[in-house]
Amino acid sequence: MSFAHAGTLDLQAIKGIRIGTALAGIRQNERDDIVVFELSEKTNLAATFTKNKFCAAPVIVAKEHLEIDQPRYLLINSGNANAGLGTLGVDTAQKSCEGLAALAATEKSSVLPFSTGVIGEPLPLDKLLAALPAALKSLSGNNWDKAAKGILTTDTCTKGCTRQLEIDGQTATITGIAKGSGMIKPDMATMLAYIATDLPISQGVLQGLLKQAVDVSFNSITVDGDTSTNDAAILMATNELDIKPIKSPDDPRCNAILAELINVCCYLAEAIVKDGEGATKLIKIQVNHAANLADAREVAYTVAHSPLVKTAFFASDPNWGRILAAVGRANIKQLNVDNISIYLADTCIVKNGMRDNAYTEEQGQAVMDQYEILLTIDLAEGDASTTILSCDLSYDYVKINAEYRS
Amino acid sequence: MSFAHAGTLDLQAIKGIRIGTALAGIRQNERDDIVVFELSEKTNLAATFTKNKFCAAPVIVAKEHLEIDQPRYLLINSGNANAGLGTLGVDTAQKSCEGLAALAATEKSSVLPFSTGVIGEPLPLDKLLAALPAALKSLSGNNWDKAAKGILTTDTCTKGCTRQLEIDGQTATITGIAKGSGMIKPDMATMLAYIATDLPISQGVLQGLLKQAVDVSFNSITVDGDTSTNDAAILMATNELDIKPIKSPDDPRCNAILAELINVCCYLAEAIVKDGEGATKLIKIQVNHAANLADAREVAYTVAHSPLVKTAFFASDPNWGRILAAVGRANIKQLNVDNISIYLADTCIVKNGMRDNAYTEEQGQAVMDQYEILLTIDLAEGDASTTILSCDLSYDYVKINAEYRS
Repeated sequence: MSFAHAGTLDLQAIKGIRIGTALAGIRQNERDDIVVFELSEKTNLAATFTKNKFCAAPVIVAKEHLEIDQPRYLLINSGNANAGLGTLGVDTAQKSCEGLAALAATEKSSVLPFSTGVIGEPLPLDKLLAALPAALKSLSGNNWDKAAKGILTTDTCTKGCTRQLEIDGQTATITGIAKGSGMIKPDMATMLAYIATDLPISQGVLQGLLKQAVDVSFNSITVDGDTSTNDAAILMATNELDIKPIKSPDDPRCNAILAELINVCCYLAEAIVKDGEGATKLIKIQVNHAANLADAREVAYTVAHSPLVKTAFFASDPNWGRILAAVGRANIKQLNVDNISIYLADTCIVKNGMRDNAYTEEQGQAVMDQYEILLTIDLAEGDASTTILSCDLSYDYVKINAEYRS
Repeated sequence: MSFAHAGTLDLQAIKGIRIGTALAGIRQNERDDIVVFELSEKTNLAATFTKNKFCAAPVIVAKEHLEIDQPRYLLINSGNANAGLGTLGVDTAQKSCEGLAALAATEKSSVLPFSTGVIGEPLPLDKLLAALPAALKSLSGNNWDKAAKGILTTDTCTKGCTRQLEIDGQTATITGIAKGSGMIKPDMATMLAYIATDLPISQGVLQGLLKQAVDVSFNSITVDGDTSTNDAAILMATNELDIKPIKSPDDPRCNAILAELINVCCYLAEAIVKDGEGATKLIKIQVNHAANLADAREVAYTVAHSPLVKTAFFASDPNWGRILAAVGRANIKQLNVDNISIYLADTCIVKNGMRDNAYTEEQGQAVMDQYEILLTIDLAEGDASTTILSCDLSYDYVKINAEYRS
């Protein structure tokens, strides 16, 4: 299931969700940088946030508000992360919620703030507040495309996906958008993702579905190994579809819903890696027959983060010695190097810990010349397996990150 | 002590050690690629090897030979790592020892093989064997410079150091050479280092001294986080100096010897980082007041390996938000982000988890513009501290590693 190429529709509206955008000029004046989601009263919301210990001010405030109130508004700004600013940052995030609440005649605790962009610079609150009336004025169910654009930072393209499924004779819709390109190695969430469905799902069930979907999608990708301070993934169910509500994780309808939710999340996660800073290749790393899932993930991420492996992929160089060296330094206990096999697509390059007799450099080159490359590592230890998505390390990665603030 | 700039002499000969070099043409035909060390019968030798589970064939063979015999010869080739080749690689390493032993009229188990270069390609044994007579013919005590050149791969300069100390009224000498530029995050040893002294030190004491020196030097550096399959550090004591032999680790003379040995190892380790592939900056990362040494090292290496931090250093950009985000994702339990302080040289940039009030971008820029940068991270948790050396991530790192095999 994970990272299959799911077909996608144009972004479909979700009844119960309206979106407005505006230009506050927080870091640039070219495109809208404020996005407001308005949720109907019936909407349930599930959330996952970054595990980075330096979590940003909006993450702190959003978690507080989620504990005391039912969310009615999401307020997102791009261009500034509002992170690393201590109490000033928290105060700014709270005042932004207050500003929106006053205009929308609601409680500030029903507003969840989100920020993405540069860390450590004060968020210009005045500019943000000044743009809120325009954002509210533009509220519409059909603004998913504009929202997908409004949340971008170093991304080079919007990332959005709609999938539909039949439930109880009705057509249910799931629409999601995401942003992310650098500082991408999500830990329990991705940079920013907003997903909504018209299905009637209780908050408890929704949170479980989100966790399962995030684990195999956003939590299984990496661009540069750097976990952001602002990661968040949000799943909303507006309860508009006229079917019997789903209140238990054991409801048999959950399986089909989870499958489509995973499709949406994997589509968005793959879109983030494809748009990874400077990325020229999409690398799918599958680790099979590990002793346990933690070992499988450790091996996969050690290979994915190796600068030598990443630059070899950039050069389309089947330099499998670098892959082997990365596997060998992975921090796992159970590893018998004499049993390991490594494949590039269907080509076996390492068999039982050494170069396969039948392997030719031409075979490896043929795989490496592709845009999308499947690397399979078989540890021959147990039954656990995992798949993660990564990308290569190119000149442009250095260029983008050396010039980001200049 | 660690990573202080120790003065260094021209490489001094060590009585009891002769060195020969020759051109075998293993990967190139421009410079000698075979180095032979001949050790006098009185010489004791200590060794540390890579902990990479895919250790190379010469590492396997050298460990075997160390268990059964007293080493008399070191046989080193550059250009090919003889790794990832299974039994073929082990057979090649053994045959190379046999060839040298036959010419030198000794046992093959008294020869230790070392290889460095490309992984996964068969080592051309015939070329290596054909060059051995010339290498033996050139044996001389004054060939340390030639040896330092003969072991290089992607290195752009030789790395060598001599230090002397007075012991019991005699002048003792320690001379060392090393190579390494990429695939550098040594684990219990570095890429390749050969250090010798004329001091009379027993094998047991020698091994203890080597471990202590390696821990604070070669095991505290990183270029790209990739641990090589071939790392080895060798320390030889030829027992030529006419003083009472040092047979116990409690001998008070060990302190002064260890201090100078650390000077030599730190000089060589720093030289490796300065010559890190594509490196334009030398980054010294000091973590203070960690709960324990493991935490200190985890934080230091997480920051050192962050591609975002490394590219910011390359750009001379005081983008401290990236440092803060890297500290926040370090895998340690005890971290209170509200207590952390971060300094660039003497400039406090983060105080108590947020931007220091007095900090100005100009101050950070002034430090960042230097070639050598000290980054200090104070965790305010306990008494453990560590210092590691790292470098930046530049266009040239990508270029070197994308073009290495082409």
